[in-house]
Amino acid sequence: MLQVASESAPAGRLPDAPIVATEAPLLERYLDLRHRTEALAKGLSADDCQVQGMADASPVKWHLAHTSWFFETFLLSPQPGYAPFDAHYAALFNSYYQGLGAPRPRAARGLWSRPTLAEVRRYRAHVDAAMATLLQREPAPGLLDLGLAHEQQHQELILTDVKYALWCSPLQPAYRSGPLPARLAPLPARWIERPGVLVEIGADMDGFAFDNERPRHRHWCDAHALASRTVTNGEYLDFIRDRGYETPALWVSDGWALVQREGWNRPLYWNEDLESHFTLRGVQLLDLGEPVCHLSWYEADAYARWAGARLPREQEWEAAAAAWPVLGQFAESGRLHPRAASSASPEFFGNVWEWTASPYVAYPGYRAPAGALGEYNGKFMCNQMVLRGGSCATPAGHSRASYRNFFPPHARWQFSGLRLARDLP
Amino acid sequence: MLQVASESAPAGRLPDAPIVATEAPLLERYLDLRHRTEALAKGLSADDCQVQGMADASPVKWHLAHTSWFFETFLLSPQPGYAPFDAHYAALFNSYYQGLGAPRPRAARGLWSRPTLAEVRRYRAHVDAAMATLLQREPAPGLLDLGLAHEQQHQELILTDVKYALWCSPLQPAYRSGPLPARLAPLPARWIERPGVLVEIGADMDGFAFDNERPRHRHWCDAHALASRTVTNGEYLDFIRDRGYETPALWVSDGWALVQREGWNRPLYWNEDLESHFTLRGVQLLDLGEPVCHLSWYEADAYARWAGARLPREQEWEAAAAAWPVLGQFAESGRLHPRAASSASPEFFGNVWEWTASPYVAYPGYRAPAGALGEYNGKFMCNQMVLRGGSCATPAGHSRASYRNFFPPHARWQFSGLRLARDLP
Amino acid sequence: MLQVASESAPAGRLPDAPIVATEAPLLERYLDLRHRTEALAKGLSADDCQVQGMADASPVKWHLAHTSWFFETFLLSPQPGYAPFDAHYAALFNSYYQGLGAPRPRAARGLWSRPTLAEVRRYRAHVDAAMATLLQREPAPGLLDLGLAHEQQHQELILTDVKYALWCSPLQPAYRSGPLPARLAPLPARWIERPGVLVEIGADMDGFAFDNERPRHRHWCDAHALASRTVTNGEYLDFIRDRGYETPALWVSDGWALVQREGWNRPLYWNEDLESHFTLRGVQLLDLGEPVCHLSWYEADAYARWAGARLPREQEWEAAAAAWPVLGQFAESGRLHPRAASSASPEFFGNVWEWTASPYVAYPGYRAPAGALGEYNGKFMCNQMVLRGGSCATPAGHSRASYRNFFPPHARWQFSGLRLARDLP
Amino acid sequence: MLQVASESAPAGRLPDAPIVATEAPLLERYLDLRHRTEALAKGLSADDCQVQGMADASPVKWHLAHTSWFFETFLLSPQPGYAPFDAHYAALFNSYYQGLGAPRPRAARGLWSRPTLAEVRRYRAHVDAAMATLLQREPAPGLLDLGLAHEQQHQELILTDVKYALWCSPLQPAYRSGPLPARLAPLPARWIERPGVLVEIGADMDGFAFDNERPRHRHWCDAHALASRTVTNGEYLDFIRDRGYETPALWVSDGWALVQREGWNRPLYWNEDLESHFTLRGVQLLDLGEPVCHLSWYEADAYARWAGARLPREQEWEAAAAAWPVLGQFAESGRLHPRAASSASPEFFGNVWEWTASPYVAYPGYRAPAGALGEYNGKFMCNQMVLRGGSCATPAGHSRASYRNFFPPHARWQFSGLRLARDLP
Repeated sequence: MLQVASESAPAGRLPDAPIVATEAPLLERYLDLRHRTEALAKGLSADDCQVQGMADASPVKWHLAHTSWFFETFLLSPQPGYAPFDAHYAALFNSYYQGLGAPRPRAARGLWSRPTLAEVRRYRAHVDAAMATLLQREPAPGLLDLGLAHEQQHQELILTDVKYALWCSPLQPAYRSGPLPARLAPLPARWIERPGVLVEIGADMDGFAFDNERPRHRHWCDAHALASRTVTNGEYLDFIRDRGYETPALWVSDGWALVQREGWNRPLYWNEDLESHFTLRGVQLLDLGEPVCHLSWYEADAYARWAGARLPREQEWEAAAAAWPVLGQFAESGRLHPRAASSASPEFFGNVWEWTASPYVAYPGYRAPAGALGEYNGKFMCNQMVLRGGSCATPAGHSRASYRNFFPPHARWQFSGLRLARDLP
Repeated sequence: MLQVASESAPAGRLPDAPIVATEAPLLERYLDLRHRTEALAKGLSADDCQVQGMADASPVKWHLAHTSWFFETFLLSPQPGYAPFDAHYAALFNSYYQGLGAPRPRAARGLWSRPTLAEVRRYRAHVDAAMATLLQREPAPGLLDLGLAHEQQHQELILTDVKYALWCSPLQPAYRSGPLPARLAPLPARWIERPGVLVEIGADMDGFAFDNERPRHRHWCDAHALASRTVTNGEYLDFIRDRGYETPALWVSDGWALVQREGWNRPLYWNEDLESHFTLRGVQLLDLGEPVCHLSWYEADAYARWAGARLPREQEWEAAAAAWPVLGQFAESGRLHPRAASSASPEFFGNVWEWTASPYVAYPGYRAPAGALGEYNGKFMCNQMVLRGGSCATPAGHSRASYRNFFPPHARWQFSGLRLARDLP
Repeated sequence: MLQVASESAPAGRLPDAPIVATEAPLLERYLDLRHRTEALAKGLSADDCQVQGMADASPVKWHLAHTSWFFETFLLSPQPGYAPFDAHYAALFNSYYQGLGAPRPRAARGLWSRPTLAEVRRYRAHVDAAMATLLQREPAPGLLDLGLAHEQQHQELILTDVKYALWCSPLQPAYRSGPLPARLAPLPARWIERPGVLVEIGADMDGFAFDNERPRHRHWCDAHALASRTVTNGEYLDFIRDRGYETPALWVSDGWALVQREGWNRPLYWNEDLESHFTLRGVQLLDLGEPVCHLSWYEADAYARWAGARLPREQEWEAAAAAWPVLGQFAESGRLHPRAASSASPEFFGNVWEWTASPYVAYPGYRAPAGALGEYNGKFMCNQMVLRGGSCATPAGHSRASYRNFFPPHARWQFSGLRLARDLP
Repeated sequence: MLQVASESAPAGRLPDAPIVATEAPLLERYLDLRHRTEALAKGLSADDCQVQGMADASPVKWHLAHTSWFFETFLLSPQPGYAPFDAHYAALFNSYYQGLGAPRPRAARGLWSRPTLAEVRRYRAHVDAAMATLLQREPAPGLLDLGLAHEQQHQELILTDVKYALWCSPLQPAYRSGPLPARLAPLPARWIERPGVLVEIGADMDGFAFDNERPRHRHWCDAHALASRTVTNGEYLDFIRDRGYETPALWVSDGWALVQREGWNRPLYWNEDLESHFTLRGVQLLDLGEPVCHLSWYEADAYARWAGARLPREQEWEAAAAAWPVLGQFAESGRLHPRAASSASPEFFGNVWEWTASPYVAYPGYRAPAGALGEYNGKFMCNQMVLRGGSCATPAGHSRASYRNFFPPHARWQFSGLRLARDLP
């Protein structure tokens, strides 16, 4: 039975205004981005912001605090005379930087009722005031770009984590009210072919990029084809109906063990009826033309095998995507849900993150930065898989062709789907 | 290092006024008791009320809702024309009554951000209004006494559960502000002897009592002695210093395994320095004259063995306590912490629950009531131990000599201590 | 499908000869009893003797060694000039005596391939030779009776543990060959009534008894009735068919949680068809007239509730059983399986252990012996329930009316059944 | 304290004779290889062969049976008229082939005492007789090479699994007697440099190779250097003494969590004194010049980071190793333990498996074979890391430059060490 989800939906909205362009003064960019984070929490109660739905997710309140902690720790604390808002927070809101002292167990974040949401908001204001002073004095402090990109990552996590948290409420309330816009039939998928070639991938030295996108380097790609769009709900439903979740030959060994152990038989958030699912607008009918979403790598990989194809390697993906502008449905659209492909262009960006066949490892020549920030990306280069492209919850301007997102193969609370690939002779 | 606990302490207080006497009109008693529950949550933020510190505890918000659910389910719903506040709540706030449909997993209560604290408060008001109508129409509805006693049990649980929850916050905030009143040296303990005798224990048919206190029945007690007061922090510290936690011969087998597995070496809430502990007034210096508290049955039993004594049997305890008025330090004192024994009377009531040597089993002739309420007490008669007397968090008027509290032997987040007993030749 | 179990059945048999009477010379009694232990392992391969089917059970090889260790540790080692077989064994085969140094983790016993079965047999011979010398020199050494009773307990455990171990083999081989003798219809159960009375129970000071059977003491029993025989497979099948395993109201809370978690829906060793079960003679058709067996306390208690009755209290049981001779089907019958009640006498002994309503606690005035042997029984007086009577795997002469067996309420690999009781007005 | 390990050492030896050359008649090769498997179990008792030290390992008895099952299932069963030894074994000894019916839980293999070791030996003889008939009739049956390579893999696993199992015995007995030959000082390590180049790796179509070594394909390697030998115990001891296990910055995140959780502070089998370790010849003094062994990938990776280097990528390794003959210390040497590097050649083969930086993924163009054998390698291509080279427990003739071994990053009961690599500008 489909629950009516709109009644308890809060009124808060994402700012519709276009994002502040990167050529704007830094302070304006900083404040706009910080404001966007707070806008994401608007309409949520203190109760909502307290909940940690599972160990991999964090409370919204924690995200609001930790992003401020990042600026405080790496930009403000080194400034002479900076007075921290609360001396305990330096240790409290350290996420995972062992170099800054043993972080607190992440699974317990939802148990900290103090500081309260109201106190965390005052903490944000304190950090913003200090950052304003800093940015007026110093036009382009090192690490500011990193702090902003970091905050954008947590903007996305606020959306994925609150989705999971609200889904844990038996009432399954909506995060935002109003129906999802009308449905579109997706275009049929085409194969985009590419002969064997030595490509160059990775970020060059212009502009901001994370350390894990560098250095730019060569990679030999054998001849292959990529699909022109991602897989849809309808296509995935065919896999389910063809007993995909009951056919061990389609799964890698760890995936099959997980499916058996957890009783998985559909994507996260789909209801048992296979006709409706939980979204940030509450429970909604499943739109078969939309990209399938909230898949683990195991499911994406099994689907691809069932379809007689495979997942793209990240180098194949990047070499293809680099030819296109970074356009797509990002968080600012306010839809907060994937949307059916409507253009003939391959739409590499936005909508859903695309699982790749590539384990997340260091690029040739990679070196983690010195100090605690060396932990930002480098220490996760084991047991995780690369995702590419960005999602409907990613802030516009945050993604790029060389961007490497990564999650363990069982994770499925991100907006994660897949695009098919295949070998060419 | 002793944290200063007072700064973040909320201002809310328990009502100092005496409790409404049992001869008052029922509606007045009902409203007074309900108001006291809400007073316990005053000064707590929505964040605080959301946290479930561990699976055995519940969020304060849940207690506020569940106690209302109890009146709604057992008193209001059978009334023709009663309109529930929200049709989902009947299933949502069922604690453990299988007879009312499979309850939701208790460990997930802290994940439900909806209904919010504000909504739960409106739910309480709705139930109170309907109860007022009912009590005006019907002077003494069946089950009202049970509903009130039930709410009192949850008043105590609100205090024990919020203590645990706040302790989980790395900031360890105080629930109530202000220092604990000045220290008293406890009187020395005396032995109160009793020859072998056939006693009668259990509640008679006058007045309210839980089903598990009945029927009144005979029990042979061999000659024994009970201590005139409970064990103090100072006495327990001697046990610790005498390597009590490292001496397997003092422990039952399951207790020793637990001590090894969990690394227990002091009562819950004591700091590692053995000089301070977490209280509802934040971290405080340990007062050696106060009753020791927050012990598991395993620790109470090991201490008694170390002291060359044993725990009292519940029949010995009840036969002795029945001779005394039910006076002692209960929640209404506002101290919310045990206090050193200051009178020559044996003080069987209030301060700390006293672990007994008796497993919680049915009395001879016990029959659980028919229907869902048969689950109230009966189904827990396995793997639990009886505690007697009441604590500093128990509402005055709630305890009595025949009252049987019960918890598993590992539980120690209640205000639980012990009194020594020994056999006489 | 019923597996044919006889093909791999070993030829070894229990000695048919009557057991050596307690008035025989001690050495003869000692050697006879030791020989019976070895006879139990006859027909088992070294492979069989190595397996530990679960943490609660032990390998047969371990039992063979540990019983020898008991004599070596408590009787031989104190003798001047005794040379141990292997200096490592003192620590290796300590079961649970913390007073003798931290015992090795019990769950890993099945991982010790060394010493081999052949070496353990040589160890037994070494101990027997030294014991013979001791018993010739000293006619009645202290602790000999305890050592013999201890070895008898392990004789029973060899049978229950090897049953579990062989059941773990997908081939489910038989321990002993040959069919179970022909079926008998059980007599109908009668109620044996008893008015309220102050009874005396517990072992007196004549003859051997375990410490936990003492001191003899008074207990008030209210009027009650006991069934004249234990519950049968056919009666238990009615409980299953009446959805006993699906009716939460019949179960204590911990039991229901276990049933849900483990998916229990029939006694241990019953096959899914409810028509056959695994026995020490392999898979056999279920005989509906035989006592039901391999129940946990939870199942026994739920069955009794379903039948409108309850389990007996241990004092009720003992007071009734003390009037009868200790006759029944014990291990020496060679059947190694319960048998239908065939006599009008209440048959309190042998066949199946009977779960009681009584948690295993110290009798009034109980004191554990000094030293390591104080751990023999005393430290288990928590979280266990008392069983009475003995089983088809208990050596004849080992049980008595005052005998208290005990296991946790979830345990069901012993030959454990139940007898009904009820209150009388 | 160093235990004397020689006393309980069995006398069995690996055949000293050279292995039967690949140009010998197939039947002779088959029988020689099968005989070598049995020789590995010589000197082990049935007790030893029963033990499964942990879930990742298997009992020796199981290996003896499963390797026979492989020939029976894939070569004999398709033959008309083949009569299986026991109809139950087809399901019983299926390791992990979902395509042949759900395999039994691997962690329970050590619980199957039946079939006994003696029966499994008869099973082997039965299969060998049928294979002899087949090989006389059919000179080169498909899958024979695979069956032989499979059996060789289990020969190595017998050694690693029995090492783990014997180590679990508190007596820590030796598998083979006699001291390890005298110590050698290792040569200093040199860097072998290679400029950036497009290499070809993978097995070509000549000769036997596993599916995961194919297809041969191109890979761009940036300029890098490989060490001329693997890391020694002495070098690893420097890492330990420099607090490597206490320095989070050296570890990937999952590795650090594991080190904390398990308290790892040295390689598996090293004693706490850091001066001795358990070997297949019992407890022995640590030889600082020998290759360090029994490291997890996490430890190998952390060591490399501490050394200012990194692990080699598998393509770098293979491109270098392909230039050398497959010579080194393999199982046939009888030493069964790594040996100090004694030659100036880089010794890519034998001694210890070398962890690489490469996750185990499909080569471009890889396709798993159809049917159950498609599960042999393909389904493990997730969450595992590639090892190269072979070890002192690998049968000679089994390894080659293109050979890809793989284990999860936490596994360390294989003979696994590391070689350093570094980037060149």
